[in-house]
Amino acid sequence: MTDKDSYSIGVDIGGTKTRACVFRKSTEKIVNKVKINTGSPEDAIKAIKRTLSETSAEKNRIRGIGIGSVGPLDLSEGLIVNPTNLPTWKEVPIKKMAEEATNLPAWLDNDANVAALAERELGVKADNLIYITVSTGIGGGLISEGRLIHGKGNAGEIGHMTLAPSGPLCNCGNRGCLEALASGTAISKRGGEKLGIQDPKRIFEKAKEDNPVAERIIENACRFLGLGIANLAEIIDPEYVVLGGGVTESWNQMEKMVKSTVKNNARNEVKITLTPLGSENGLLGASLLPFVDRQ
Amino acid sequence: MTDKDSYSIGVDIGGTKTRACVFRKSTEKIVNKVKINTGSPEDAIKAIKRTLSETSAEKNRIRGIGIGSVGPLDLSEGLIVNPTNLPTWKEVPIKKMAEEATNLPAWLDNDANVAALAERELGVKADNLIYITVSTGIGGGLISEGRLIHGKGNAGEIGHMTLAPSGPLCNCGNRGCLEALASGTAISKRGGEKLGIQDPKRIFEKAKEDNPVAERIIENACRFLGLGIANLAEIIDPEYVVLGGGVTESWNQMEKMVKSTVKNNARNEVKITLTPLGSENGLLGASLLPFVDRQ
Repeated sequence: MTDKDSYSIGVDIGGTKTRACVFRKSTEKIVNKVKINTGSPEDAIKAIKRTLSETSAEKNRIRGIGIGSVGPLDLSEGLIVNPTNLPTWKEVPIKKMAEEATNLPAWLDNDANVAALAERELGVKADNLIYITVSTGIGGGLISEGRLIHGKGNAGEIGHMTLAPSGPLCNCGNRGCLEALASGTAISKRGGEKLGIQDPKRIFEKAKEDNPVAERIIENACRFLGLGIANLAEIIDPEYVVLGGGVTESWNQMEKMVKSTVKNNARNEVKITLTPLGSENGLLGASLLPFVDRQ
Repeated sequence: MTDKDSYSIGVDIGGTKTRACVFRKSTEKIVNKVKINTGSPEDAIKAIKRTLSETSAEKNRIRGIGIGSVGPLDLSEGLIVNPTNLPTWKEVPIKKMAEEATNLPAWLDNDANVAALAERELGVKADNLIYITVSTGIGGGLISEGRLIHGKGNAGEIGHMTLAPSGPLCNCGNRGCLEALASGTAISKRGGEKLGIQDPKRIFEKAKEDNPVAERIIENACRFLGLGIANLAEIIDPEYVVLGGGVTESWNQMEKMVKSTVKNNARNEVKITLTPLGSENGLLGASLLPFVDRQ
């Protein structure tokens, strides 16, 4: 990372909201921010142009545009391919669109990867880490010896790691994926069936009130999240697993069960912590993309 | 990789055998080879010195010594820590020992990692691959965008990925690890219990003769190996999974079941193949260590 005195534009394209910002490298802070409901790709480009028009930073000091997006992506072509949560977005050449609209270079990576990058630079500041978002789905960004693990482009799909071959059906069509066992959707589904409550927050509340059915649902999700983390510790050997996403707002009820499962199941040691960057880690990570060395 | 006209010394330290060789970079071939029963660390050093004394290559053209070893290792210190299969080896400073005995620089990495390196350079020649050895245990070497994934040193322990939380007990003390489900040891244990046959080769033969119990044992192992590969495809997204190790000598009986399980369980596409380098891939990979760029 160089150029401490320059700026970037960060964009975080999510299933419901899209955020764009100006990021100042010298202070490592977001200085302008725009938040819109995710609409069409053109709306995202408009948000980028708005942040550009509103910033007082000189244009020649803006290094480029970093875009974090829900996947799947085609990284070599800069395409958003066909996200489940954005059914009208098909093969969107977002990198090229951003470059043509602004005359600035643009970079694209997936949302969990850019969040992992933010953790490396601004969060736990470690060279070996995994960022896991536990939300409607479960996704991961993996960093080994300072570098993102992309594989041929789509690494980090940790939510579809099978942990229980005869477990519950996942949206992907398989059984017993981590996501079908430990995501917000999984907790909600189990709550609906067994308690008549679908909101994960209310299920966590019920568990806090010692409702044994709710306790069992939460415990089950935490044990499988712990097993998933233990598997990743064996496979990737990170120093940190950093957690974020809506479900981890109830981390105080989860921490003990998740950590004890990891301790019992992984021989490689790993520190597990909530993200110190909060829900802006995706936007911060996208903003960092223009500053990352690529070799 | 540079210096096409130079040589290296490769060493492969296994639980039973230790092999050392001279490797000629220009032809990518092993030109001298020594094989001994693995004894003390001093015996391994003697084997290195013997290959050096027997080679006609000029000493100033030998780039260094690459050592592949059973783990766990401490890569930063160049130590073989305490391998289960080498109970008398404790905190052995093998890198320093080799350097002092030869006045050549030495590099150390684990056996599955160096085999993955051999696949990258000389085998399937891909930048995104996973090498898996299925033998007494199960280990892996992971390469993303051309680089080995080390994490904080001990990545690739894929044999201890949990696939069935209430499955059979593993040597590591947990239940349902890939290694407890699909290794030679797992097949042998199941064969002993259900057929009174412990030799995996004989169990494969029985399955070929349509013995339904043997068929079931082999099918079970193949399905779990496939599930493990599918999980790795989702997590690392390699182009190739390359298989080696004693159990894969029966690959013609395994291929269909392994591949169909991966196809059903992974959304990321992956090609699965036996190593084109045979059982020398570990020795070849060790020989390549002195030629690998480190940044």
